[in-house]
Amino acid sequence: MLFGKGASNGIALGKALLIENEPLNIEKKTIENTEIEKNKFLEALNISKEQLSKVRDKALKELGEEKAAIFEAHLMILDDPEIMNQTKDKIENEKVNAAFAFKEIANQFIMIFESMDNEYMRERAADIRDVSDRVLRNIVGQKVIDLSMLDEEVILIADDLTPSDTATMDKEKVLGFLTNIGGRTSHTAIMARSLEIPAVVGLGDITDKVKNGDYIILNGETGEVIVNPNEEEINKYKALKENYEKERKELEKIIGQKSVTLDGREVELVGNIGTPKDIEGLLKNDAEGVGLYRTEFIYMDRDSMPTEEEQFEAYKKVLEGLGDKPVVIRTLDIGGDKKLPYLKIDEEMNPFLGYRAIRLCLDKKEIFKTQLRALLRASVYGNLKIMFPMISSLEELLAAKEVLNEVKKDLDSEGIKYAENIEIGMMIEVPSAAIISDILAKHVDFFSIGTNDLIQYTTAVDRMNEKIHHLYSTFNPGVLRLIKMVIDNGHKENIWVGMCGEAAGDKKMIPILLGMGLDEFSMSASSILPARKLIRSLKFEDAKKIADKVLSMGSAKEIERYLENTI
Amino acid sequence: MLFGKGASNGIALGKALLIENEPLNIEKKTIENTEIEKNKFLEALNISKEQLSKVRDKALKELGEEKAAIFEAHLMILDDPEIMNQTKDKIENEKVNAAFAFKEIANQFIMIFESMDNEYMRERAADIRDVSDRVLRNIVGQKVIDLSMLDEEVILIADDLTPSDTATMDKEKVLGFLTNIGGRTSHTAIMARSLEIPAVVGLGDITDKVKNGDYIILNGETGEVIVNPNEEEINKYKALKENYEKERKELEKIIGQKSVTLDGREVELVGNIGTPKDIEGLLKNDAEGVGLYRTEFIYMDRDSMPTEEEQFEAYKKVLEGLGDKPVVIRTLDIGGDKKLPYLKIDEEMNPFLGYRAIRLCLDKKEIFKTQLRALLRASVYGNLKIMFPMISSLEELLAAKEVLNEVKKDLDSEGIKYAENIEIGMMIEVPSAAIISDILAKHVDFFSIGTNDLIQYTTAVDRMNEKIHHLYSTFNPGVLRLIKMVIDNGHKENIWVGMCGEAAGDKKMIPILLGMGLDEFSMSASSILPARKLIRSLKFEDAKKIADKVLSMGSAKEIERYLENTI
Repeated sequence: MLFGKGASNGIALGKALLIENEPLNIEKKTIENTEIEKNKFLEALNISKEQLSKVRDKALKELGEEKAAIFEAHLMILDDPEIMNQTKDKIENEKVNAAFAFKEIANQFIMIFESMDNEYMRERAADIRDVSDRVLRNIVGQKVIDLSMLDEEVILIADDLTPSDTATMDKEKVLGFLTNIGGRTSHTAIMARSLEIPAVVGLGDITDKVKNGDYIILNGETGEVIVNPNEEEINKYKALKENYEKERKELEKIIGQKSVTLDGREVELVGNIGTPKDIEGLLKNDAEGVGLYRTEFIYMDRDSMPTEEEQFEAYKKVLEGLGDKPVVIRTLDIGGDKKLPYLKIDEEMNPFLGYRAIRLCLDKKEIFKTQLRALLRASVYGNLKIMFPMISSLEELLAAKEVLNEVKKDLDSEGIKYAENIEIGMMIEVPSAAIISDILAKHVDFFSIGTNDLIQYTTAVDRMNEKIHHLYSTFNPGVLRLIKMVIDNGHKENIWVGMCGEAAGDKKMIPILLGMGLDEFSMSASSILPARKLIRSLKFEDAKKIADKVLSMGSAKEIERYLENTI
Repeated sequence: MLFGKGASNGIALGKALLIENEPLNIEKKTIENTEIEKNKFLEALNISKEQLSKVRDKALKELGEEKAAIFEAHLMILDDPEIMNQTKDKIENEKVNAAFAFKEIANQFIMIFESMDNEYMRERAADIRDVSDRVLRNIVGQKVIDLSMLDEEVILIADDLTPSDTATMDKEKVLGFLTNIGGRTSHTAIMARSLEIPAVVGLGDITDKVKNGDYIILNGETGEVIVNPNEEEINKYKALKENYEKERKELEKIIGQKSVTLDGREVELVGNIGTPKDIEGLLKNDAEGVGLYRTEFIYMDRDSMPTEEEQFEAYKKVLEGLGDKPVVIRTLDIGGDKKLPYLKIDEEMNPFLGYRAIRLCLDKKEIFKTQLRALLRASVYGNLKIMFPMISSLEELLAAKEVLNEVKKDLDSEGIKYAENIEIGMMIEVPSAAIISDILAKHVDFFSIGTNDLIQYTTAVDRMNEKIHHLYSTFNPGVLRLIKMVIDNGHKENIWVGMCGEAAGDKKMIPILLGMGLDEFSMSASSILPARKLIRSLKFEDAKKIADKVLSMGSAKEIERYLENTI
């Protein structure tokens, strides 16, 4: 049995699919019959076109026109007569094998595009490389893995999954993930929870230990992984899986019920989302709204800034999807570990302490204004609340609000409507903001505490740094005191206080946060019903006592031990 | 007039010396008279030996045997018969110029050493490169700049100065520094204040704008720089300089007086030091002790860990130098932006949020124990207080104290004496430590607040990142509230609270800190007398009011404006 980090609850049993494609070794061979090679090439082209058409159609249906356009462009490359004719000529004239001839020709095109002094053209080189890789695999008869076109149910094994892997994958066929790298708060882990797919991450070398077709068991809660289990193990985990699913079914019974304690304290359980696609999972899990819409995904995996119109469409879709439920949309939080290829930002020595989020938006006002225009225009389609990330000082908050007012004035003068009384809030994720939250509370309608960053800055621990991971804890007493301070300061000014970090969905944290008076808990879709069940089993008065007790303790370990014994 | 960042007060007027050596262009030439070339080579060897002997003698006298050993090694390279004979042969056989022949031979040796699979041998390649550079410059008649051997008074112009530049330089001859990079808290700036040499840093491209021999005026307080000023400007700044020096003389009158307010609140004004050499400046400025001895300099600029004995000698020298005055020695604070070549640490994405200081010491206990042994053994020679850096949790503090106790037990069993009742303290530079300082105060004898890092973490701003420098402020209200919290929590447990960050010597901060109740102010030597003068002019009761007022304000700008109008 192997152990990784449980990243998304649930048990999965099934066949492994390594999505690390095997390297292609194309050797030059002299051949006699050039016709056979030319046909082999043309056939591979056709197979590639068929595959890509399917991917495009699926993307069009599920992800929208914009993402589908990438695959349309790939198809056009396959129709390029230059590439086709030059490859056929090379096979004929040089009497070489199809794979070698095509590779040489494709490489010429890649080199030409790469050498161009134009960002857009250089990106095209990557497209050609992608497509030619597919054609080459089809020529040599190596299986091409399309996560959007899986034939059977599988457990994916990868070094890590990219945002586009998770965006295009066929979630009906993916039973689970296992990855070499990552922690509970890595992108892959967050996506797994959002897709409600069991996952274990941070396994180190799982891609070396597993072959395609191996039978895999994984427990996304405990982080256990078994490769090629015996029958006893299979039966045991099948029973556990059944039990887990029964519990999930039980949870479904509390759909439609209030998130309220035994003694009547009612809170709001809402969801974190990255794209409009995530709404489905939220609604299925009876989220009472969106507590955090991370808009940066609109900006990622593309060649240029999204237009105002593209953003407007995405925001409108989410707002309409949620009806009159509240939707907190966070303005662009890029920088740090999230980079945009088309936005050149100098390398920084400490990107987490650098030029990111609101800092970047207040510096590049045009980007910020475009987003705010799109948000305001979309506001008439639902219950929008706008939230600024990474505010570290009063000056920044006031500056961000000032830009918003400028944009409102622009819209007024253009006669464009937007909702009145949109709530404006800010994230509390920088210690300095938490500490002056009494003052900041006078200038916003709500706070949302971002625990991932707040822990990181309060304890000076990069949460991605494995060497000091033992110092990164949600239960750090300094962090807990800051959270309490923020809630109290918010309530003194009669504003509501939420939390959109990972801690809001943590079983051990929920009683503490409830007891501290937190009003809104925003979490992954799959955590919502378990959280509601827990809250419905607690008394607010008891939770207050737990919170008070915990706030008097000096170490994270002491706090965790106490919680384990108490809850 | 150019503007940089004033890094060390005082005005300097004098001739520029660019310490960026001009690149050497050695071309191959065919020569007729090989005897002339061989003599040229031997003569350059002799000049180099003379120069290096002087440097070694000076280093031996001023810096001690260990640093001098480097130059001894360089001299030995010049005596190597292989290098000498092979160069002479090459001149003779190939009829080439001396510089080319020597360069080729030296490069061969460099390559051989560099290719060795041994860290120590590879370091030797750097030595040979250093020495051969000197010989080549002497062959072609280019001036070799030895900062320890300056002929006349100069103002140094450099991209930046290395710790070894500042360690070896002849401070009698260096009137001032100008550098392209750096801020008020960069190494060069700290060294300039410690050496009491006026300096302006962060000028961007001063090395391009100034030629050797240009006349330079600089004002290390305002950051002004004038290249080749007119007579009027020279007279104006000469008058300013005279005035500044008169004020310094005035300050000398308060040597020996107490650091006490008009209404009797007495505080301690102590100094920050990096090496035993800095004691001289401290005592000249009437420091009441050492508030921060940064021991990492003992570990830097060398090939291997300093031995217990080497450390013991350094600590003993400082303790003896200070007599019965308190000396706070901080245990190793390496990592972050300070790396040791012989201690391999993986590259980190955010080194400031990484594996550093106490985190490293608790992981590599042997390094920590060696230092603690040396400290304890030295403790009998003065008034030692030991301080742990970067504590972010109670667990770390208790673990560090536990290691100290283990070392004490080892010494007990070996019958080695150490002082009884050595005070143990910790730095407060991580927000989580400040926030639980009520709990931490129960386990230490003192706190020392490190403002540079505390500001950095509290506001999530890398202080070296120019793009967000506007967000880095000592007057950030969140930081000021944390400082107040730490002082109050310390006093509740009857321990003293000091500050060893740059803020402790800042004229505008001193009244606030005094009003908050800070007990000990540790600063650069040159700031001590001005700080005492200021404190002697204030009333504690007024300072308390200023502190209270400031703590109610929401922005750094508002606070700075208020202070400018009040003080």
